[in-house]
Amino acid sequence: MPQLRKDPVTREWVIIATERSRRPTDFKVSEDVEGRPAFSEKCPFCPGNESMTPPEVLAYRAAGSAPNGPGWWVRVVPNKFPALAIEGSLDRTGFGMYDMMNGIGAHEVIVECVEHNRSLNSITALQAQEVFWAYRDRFLDLIQDRRFKYILLFRNHGKIAGASLEHPHSQLIALPMVPQDVTLKIEGAARYYDYHERCIYCDMIKQEMSFGERVVTVNDEFVAFCPFAAKYPFETWIMPRRHEQSFGLMERGSMNAFAGICQDVLQRISASLNSPPYNFTLHTAPVNQDRERDFHWHLSIMPRLTIAAGFEMGTGVYINVTAPEDAASFLRAATLPVPELDGAHIRMPAPVSK
Amino acid sequence: MPQLRKDPVTREWVIIATERSRRPTDFKVSEDVEGRPAFSEKCPFCPGNESMTPPEVLAYRAAGSAPNGPGWWVRVVPNKFPALAIEGSLDRTGFGMYDMMNGIGAHEVIVECVEHNRSLNSITALQAQEVFWAYRDRFLDLIQDRRFKYILLFRNHGKIAGASLEHPHSQLIALPMVPQDVTLKIEGAARYYDYHERCIYCDMIKQEMSFGERVVTVNDEFVAFCPFAAKYPFETWIMPRRHEQSFGLMERGSMNAFAGICQDVLQRISASLNSPPYNFTLHTAPVNQDRERDFHWHLSIMPRLTIAAGFEMGTGVYINVTAPEDAASFLRAATLPVPELDGAHIRMPAPVSK
Repeated sequence: MPQLRKDPVTREWVIIATERSRRPTDFKVSEDVEGRPAFSEKCPFCPGNESMTPPEVLAYRAAGSAPNGPGWWVRVVPNKFPALAIEGSLDRTGFGMYDMMNGIGAHEVIVECVEHNRSLNSITALQAQEVFWAYRDRFLDLIQDRRFKYILLFRNHGKIAGASLEHPHSQLIALPMVPQDVTLKIEGAARYYDYHERCIYCDMIKQEMSFGERVVTVNDEFVAFCPFAAKYPFETWIMPRRHEQSFGLMERGSMNAFAGICQDVLQRISASLNSPPYNFTLHTAPVNQDRERDFHWHLSIMPRLTIAAGFEMGTGVYINVTAPEDAASFLRAATLPVPELDGAHIRMPAPVSK
Repeated sequence: MPQLRKDPVTREWVIIATERSRRPTDFKVSEDVEGRPAFSEKCPFCPGNESMTPPEVLAYRAAGSAPNGPGWWVRVVPNKFPALAIEGSLDRTGFGMYDMMNGIGAHEVIVECVEHNRSLNSITALQAQEVFWAYRDRFLDLIQDRRFKYILLFRNHGKIAGASLEHPHSQLIALPMVPQDVTLKIEGAARYYDYHERCIYCDMIKQEMSFGERVVTVNDEFVAFCPFAAKYPFETWIMPRRHEQSFGLMERGSMNAFAGICQDVLQRISASLNSPPYNFTLHTAPVNQDRERDFHWHLSIMPRLTIAAGFEMGTGVYINVTAPEDAASFLRAATLPVPELDGAHIRMPAPVSK
C-alpha cells in the first residue's frame, strides 16, 4: 500500500510508492567523472585558463601568486552568464495587476579544485574544508550588501542535474527577496514554535536519532538522515545537531566536521548508486534578519534518479519510489573509499593560513 | 537587465533572464513522433493488445464491440503501476511528530487514439474532442467517491517530460487531500477576492486581452496566453473566458472549443520548437467543495526546454530564459498544419452518440 507522508515543516505531502520500488541497482543514471582528463584546454575553470572567466572575487592561492592566474586551490568568479545583475537598483513597480522589479543580485561560481576530473566527493578532506570555507567567506561578504535578503549556495553535479560545465564547481545566488520555499519553511517552523516553544528541526533530529532507521551517518556536530517525507529517492539532509539558524555563523572546527560528513554522504551515494547526477542546496536563514527561533540550517542532497513530470508540476506532490528507511539502510551499508592523503593529489602548494 | 516578476495568484517569484535568452531555434530538444510505426506489437495501448492492461474503466467504442478488445477510439484503464491504491481506507495516523495516511487514490491512463505514431496535436479535431470528453467522463465519475478531494488530469509528452510509454496518452490521478500547490492558488485567489471582490483570473484575462502582447490565440470561449510570470520558456495557459470554477462543469459545445484551442496551441508549440517534449496540467477546483469565488480552471502547457536544477530546487524560484512576450510573439507567428479531414485517419467506425 502506498503511503502519503507530510513534511512536518512545510506541510507538503509526498507519495511513497514502493510498489514501483527500486533498489539502488535499478537506477540507471550515472555521471562518473573518472574517465575525464585531469586538465582540459577549453575549460574556463582549469588552471591556466583564468582569463576565460570574469575576474576572481576570491581565491585561496599560494603566497606571491598573481590574481587571475594559476596558483589557486579554490577560486570564486562571477558567473559569465548571470541570472541576476549586480549593478543597479530594484525599482519595484507595477503593471496593472502585476508586480515586478529589476533582477538585482549576485551569481557566482566556486571552482572547487584545480583538477578537471575530480568531484566534491573525491577531493581530499582538507580541500573539501577549503571549499566550504570559501562558501562562508562569500556568504559573509555578500550579506553586507543590504539589497540582498537571501543567499543560496548549491551544487549541480552532472548534465541531468543541470550542470553545463564538467569542472567541479558550486554556485551562489544572492537574491533581493526571500524566495517562496524559504518563506514556507520559516512559516512552518514558526507555527511549530508557537505551539511547542521548541525548534521543529531540533525535535526532528531528536526523533531521528532515537529511532535511527532513517539515519545515514553521524559525527560529533552533524547528523545525516533521509527525511521522513523525502521527495526524491535517496534524498539526504545534513543538519547541525546544535541549534544554529545560519550557515554563516559556523566556526572553523564545525566547518571541518561539516565538510567531513558531506564527503562521507556523497561518497555513500556515489558508491551505492553508481555515481549518480545530483543537486544539493544549502538552506539557511534569510540574511540580516533574526530568525533564531524559525530556522535551523541544513544541506539537502537530492540524487536525480527519476523525472518530475506533469503530476509533480501540477500539484507540488512528489512520488518517491524508494522509502527513506530503505534508502538510509542502503547508504549505511555502502563501502567507502580509502581516504587519500591530504594534499597528495594537489599540484599547488598547501593552503596558507588566512 | 534581468527582471523579477511575481505570479499574482501564488506570489511566486520568477527570474526572466533574457540575457541568456533563446530563440525557438536555440532549444535543441525534440520529441518527434513521425518516425514511429503506426502500430507496435509490444505496446499495451495499441489495439489488439488490450489484455496487456488492467480492464478498461471507460471506452468509446463501436456499437457491438466487446470490452477489452479492439473497436475503441478512446480507452481509459487503471495504471498498471499505480502511484496510489483504489481500495482501502485512509487511516490517518501519526508517528511522533510526523503525519501520514494510506496512499488511497485513483491513477488512470487515457489512451488518446489507436495510432501509435500520433499525438494530441496531430489527431483530428473530432478525435481530440473525444479525448477531452473522456477526461470529463472520468472526472465526473470519480468525484462521486467521497474519499477524493482533488483530481489532476495531465499529460507527459516525450521521455524528457517523464513519459515511459510512446503511445499517445494522458493520465488522471485522484487524491485524498488537496495538494499544496492548489491550496496556494486558492489562497491567492481568495486574498484577491477579499480585496477587490473580483476573480483574479477574470481580471488577468481582461488585462491580457486588452494589451495583447502575451496572447497566443483566442476563440469565442477560450484565450491562450503566456503568463506574465511564466516559470518555463514558452509556458502557455489556456483559460475559459467566462468564469468557471471546475473543468467538470463544461458542456459539449465548450469542450469542442477547448479541444480546438488546445490543438491549436500544441501545434504552434510543435511547429515553433521542433516538436519539443512537454507536460500539461489541468488546474481545476478541488472536488465536492464550493470554490466559485476562489478558482477559475485552466490548462498549463509547459515545454521541457531547460532543466530545473539546484537553484530552482532550493528556492522554488525559476529562471526563465525566454520572456513570455517574446514566446507569445513566436507562437502567434507559427505556421499551422492544414487540418486533416475528420476521421480520415481513424481505422475504427466514427463515434456513436453517448
